[in-house]
Amino acid sequence: MAASASPSSVGDLDPNSTNLRPPSSSYDWRAVHGRTRKLGMKICGFLQKNNNLEVKNRVVDSYNEQQSSKTFLTRDNEQDPRFIRTETDFSNLYARDLLPAKNGEEVTVQFLLEVFDILTNYIRKTFDRSTKVLDFHHPHQLLEGLEGFNLELSEQPESLEQILVDCRDTLKYGVRTGHPRFFNQLSTGLDIIGLAGEWLTSTANTNMFTYEIAPVFVLMEQLTLKKMREIVGWPDGEGDGIFSPGGAISNMYSVMVARYKHYPEVKTKGMTAAPRLILFTSEHSHYSIQKASAALGFGTENLILLNTDDRGRVIPADLEAKVIEVKQKGYVPLFVNATAGSTVYGAFDPVHEIADICDKYNMWLHVDAAWGGGLLMSRKHRHKLSGIERANSVTWNPHKMMGVPLQCSAILVREKGLLQACNSMCAGYLFQPDKQYDVTYDTGDKAVQCGRHVDIFKFWLMWKAKGTVGFEKHVDHCLELSHYLYTKLKDLEGYEMVFKGEPQHTNVCFWYVPPSLRGMSDGVERCQRLHKVAPKIKAMMMESGTAMVSYQPQGDKVNFFRMVISNPAATRSDIDFLIEEIDRLGQGL
Amino acid sequence: MAASASPSSVGDLDPNSTNLRPPSSSYDWRAVHGRTRKLGMKICGFLQKNNNLEVKNRVVDSYNEQQSSKTFLTRDNEQDPRFIRTETDFSNLYARDLLPAKNGEEVTVQFLLEVFDILTNYIRKTFDRSTKVLDFHHPHQLLEGLEGFNLELSEQPESLEQILVDCRDTLKYGVRTGHPRFFNQLSTGLDIIGLAGEWLTSTANTNMFTYEIAPVFVLMEQLTLKKMREIVGWPDGEGDGIFSPGGAISNMYSVMVARYKHYPEVKTKGMTAAPRLILFTSEHSHYSIQKASAALGFGTENLILLNTDDRGRVIPADLEAKVIEVKQKGYVPLFVNATAGSTVYGAFDPVHEIADICDKYNMWLHVDAAWGGGLLMSRKHRHKLSGIERANSVTWNPHKMMGVPLQCSAILVREKGLLQACNSMCAGYLFQPDKQYDVTYDTGDKAVQCGRHVDIFKFWLMWKAKGTVGFEKHVDHCLELSHYLYTKLKDLEGYEMVFKGEPQHTNVCFWYVPPSLRGMSDGVERCQRLHKVAPKIKAMMMESGTAMVSYQPQGDKVNFFRMVISNPAATRSDIDFLIEEIDRLGQGL
Repeated sequence: MAASASPSSVGDLDPNSTNLRPPSSSYDWRAVHGRTRKLGMKICGFLQKNNNLEVKNRVVDSYNEQQSSKTFLTRDNEQDPRFIRTETDFSNLYARDLLPAKNGEEVTVQFLLEVFDILTNYIRKTFDRSTKVLDFHHPHQLLEGLEGFNLELSEQPESLEQILVDCRDTLKYGVRTGHPRFFNQLSTGLDIIGLAGEWLTSTANTNMFTYEIAPVFVLMEQLTLKKMREIVGWPDGEGDGIFSPGGAISNMYSVMVARYKHYPEVKTKGMTAAPRLILFTSEHSHYSIQKASAALGFGTENLILLNTDDRGRVIPADLEAKVIEVKQKGYVPLFVNATAGSTVYGAFDPVHEIADICDKYNMWLHVDAAWGGGLLMSRKHRHKLSGIERANSVTWNPHKMMGVPLQCSAILVREKGLLQACNSMCAGYLFQPDKQYDVTYDTGDKAVQCGRHVDIFKFWLMWKAKGTVGFEKHVDHCLELSHYLYTKLKDLEGYEMVFKGEPQHTNVCFWYVPPSLRGMSDGVERCQRLHKVAPKIKAMMMESGTAMVSYQPQGDKVNFFRMVISNPAATRSDIDFLIEEIDRLGQGL
Repeated sequence: MAASASPSSVGDLDPNSTNLRPPSSSYDWRAVHGRTRKLGMKICGFLQKNNNLEVKNRVVDSYNEQQSSKTFLTRDNEQDPRFIRTETDFSNLYARDLLPAKNGEEVTVQFLLEVFDILTNYIRKTFDRSTKVLDFHHPHQLLEGLEGFNLELSEQPESLEQILVDCRDTLKYGVRTGHPRFFNQLSTGLDIIGLAGEWLTSTANTNMFTYEIAPVFVLMEQLTLKKMREIVGWPDGEGDGIFSPGGAISNMYSVMVARYKHYPEVKTKGMTAAPRLILFTSEHSHYSIQKASAALGFGTENLILLNTDDRGRVIPADLEAKVIEVKQKGYVPLFVNATAGSTVYGAFDPVHEIADICDKYNMWLHVDAAWGGGLLMSRKHRHKLSGIERANSVTWNPHKMMGVPLQCSAILVREKGLLQACNSMCAGYLFQPDKQYDVTYDTGDKAVQCGRHVDIFKFWLMWKAKGTVGFEKHVDHCLELSHYLYTKLKDLEGYEMVFKGEPQHTNVCFWYVPPSLRGMSDGVERCQRLHKVAPKIKAMMMESGTAMVSYQPQGDKVNFFRMVISNPAATRSDIDFLIEEIDRLGQGL
């Protein structure tokens, strides 16, 4: 095993002392760009010499020379005469010159090597704290076109050189979601193994509907889903499941399957064949439950929101009271969603107590663990989901807390066969019963989708590469960091916590109170002014590009910051940086 | 412009005379593999010398020496002393040694270069007709583990060396959907620009819900959707739309939006608030319309299937008769799906005549052009979709006829604002109204998804690289090939067409009649025996790995082959090959 330290352990392993504060014009994007091009040229130059390329070459022009002189990361031996700085002239090459064109092989490899170079430079910079998280521009600025970056589509083809420029510019004006100071979303980070998995997936370019055209991926999905069900706690990992394009669709599946279990006639006769069906979810739950209630024909008024305690956890007594009320009206309580890791507070609903009520009233229990599911991988934290093994279905998004690249979401169902029965339409052109292999591996008819993207491979590969223990370290690391943040903030002047006590997940919710508001008594004016603080700081932060963190109001609470940590690249120094940065930007408000 | 010929023109530009017939054991996978490793080592060797790598190196072991001696594609100068054949020893390196690990940069680039090497070798082989389309194994064989390829997930991490082996094996046991002789699905081919786009997309690893974290991609989506609406024929490209995870979800959107337009109260009150609503679609239409009717609470019995002519096109008079019948029962005809390019026959429903009936009875007209939409790019073939400009919504999958990598599907809606009104739930934590930029660019609330994969970039990049004219060439090329196939088959002994006349799309449906059945009179026995022919040939074809083509029964027609062409790599020689291959395999049946 190599000696380099694990990135999963907490602490400042790689704090990178170069900070971007204040955002300075001395940071030279073009210099970085120059370095990118040079490495690419060298790789290309090497290959050209050795593969007897017939594509045109040219000596690097003066623009590139100029760029090289600005390079600030130079470690290469610039003078080595063995690597002549020539490159393929992509300005005279077009998409039609790539494979499957005759003799297109070398141009294809050259072109992809250039792309590889652009991407690996982007990856390097993503983890480099001396680069910005983003280079913010307003929509109208990007639409008008910046320095030759023209988004408009054209009749005629552009050269491969322009395509490479377009690739660079697309990354340049985007947001580095893997940057250690990007805290804006539940999905952050850039896992290298996962990335390799995605590159392979897109190269394989196939579809999950049948074993016939995705034999390996279909089996990987089955094995991984079984492993996930074992971890949820279902005996022998029995049950069913499928990967879907995101947690919202996974949650939608849970409602569909619950309905099919209790009222299978709805599949053929529609919602009017069932009595009035009622769904329950926390007022803090994800809005996808609402979307499902609207889309599937229940209606949002038949989704009842449950009260929560001050930590955002469902109050079981409120659920039972509302179930009774609904039954008294003659409606049928069908489905309860318990959230394991709410979006804003990171709250875990008490699953056991909710499961007791579901048992009592014969309701389907779904656990939306899209965000919290990752904690199942941690011996230290999995108790927060205690009772999840009693669920009828579970949503779990490895693309959130487990750092798998987007998209990767699973819906798990305890009862085998339900997904298939609920969704199957037996299309003859795909699911022929007279194939030569065991067609129970053709899983496509379980899905509401027909074609289905291969989301499994990157996750499977990460699991192989990190092991179960690697995911545990990842989760523990992020939770320790949020503990560090919480501990630091709770007594710090100018910061107020949104709810009391240690957060359950990595969500840390707080107000920054600028000096001008610190002496003010609580009241309408303070609220109104405090409400504007987070958006202003966020806007300044985005414009300086130093970090990104989310904010929102919630119920009667005015705009507050929500920190979330899911990126293993983040360290204590990044947390310290963020706190100081908020203070720096907010001082004068 | 380079002199190499365009792959988009018809003819045998690159027929590659090396054919895989009969499937021979003389083809040596390990030899190809050997070459792969060598190129990678050389790139690595180069980088190591020039970047002062600190990772461990070792001289290539005897295994690799052995591999090298088998290489059959050698063009490199093996003796060049400048490139010492050393490589990074990945057997002692783990995922934790990659970025964000301290000093992880070089290991990361080395590792990704190895992956790059694996992928580019796969790409080369994909277009090489001397390689198999697939190396078929039954599920139990893959599950038992083949030559060290173990699908089971483990507690402890595996070395990066093993991860690279896993990547190679995953590709080895998969299906080359880009192979010129893979005709099995509507989505085929491996577009290099699209692939580069996917690699970049996964490296950017962001989410479409807000402009905040996907500024460039959100704008690309808007511009591309507008362009698509212009091509559909809506004035000034006005309207709305969104990319969704596949045609089935796009079709589901169309039903949801139609329902919202006519009965907006269903969103809040559920399906019971509306009268009994009826949907119409062709008996030949895609099964996703059925899935939508079940999922959204209409019920499959309220989806009425329309009769078609012998070419699989809806008979408008049958639609009108059924609408009248439904109205007489007091139900409400809501929605008609017209298919532009049916899955099996490739039929185009007569949109104008259907639109007239929709106008008359105030029904929503959706055109499912998932498969046929690509023909809109062709001046020669777009007349087949004449009337599509009268649709209220359109599904169009660039990942089918336009060769964009999976997944890429758009739902287009003529009336602006409907998608948003239908699906919005205004989640405060994502769609804050008090952001510093124009928040109308935050398009996430239009979707039923929350997180949404970036499907636009590869498509946008392909459009840039090929131009509108490039897509036209692609489409025309595939249709000319299918014309060639049809012309050849219709008078060939042993082949019978499933329907008369030139196909409208690239779907060519036919029976292969083995010599033993040729003299037999039409009757039950012949039908029963003919029904078994296509599955048997398909199974032999998969086991020999020479080609892949789909088959299915349809209505009262026994199993027949359905050829579809969407891969620009295919040439007349591949069509010839397929016909001969079917004959070779089927002779003795």
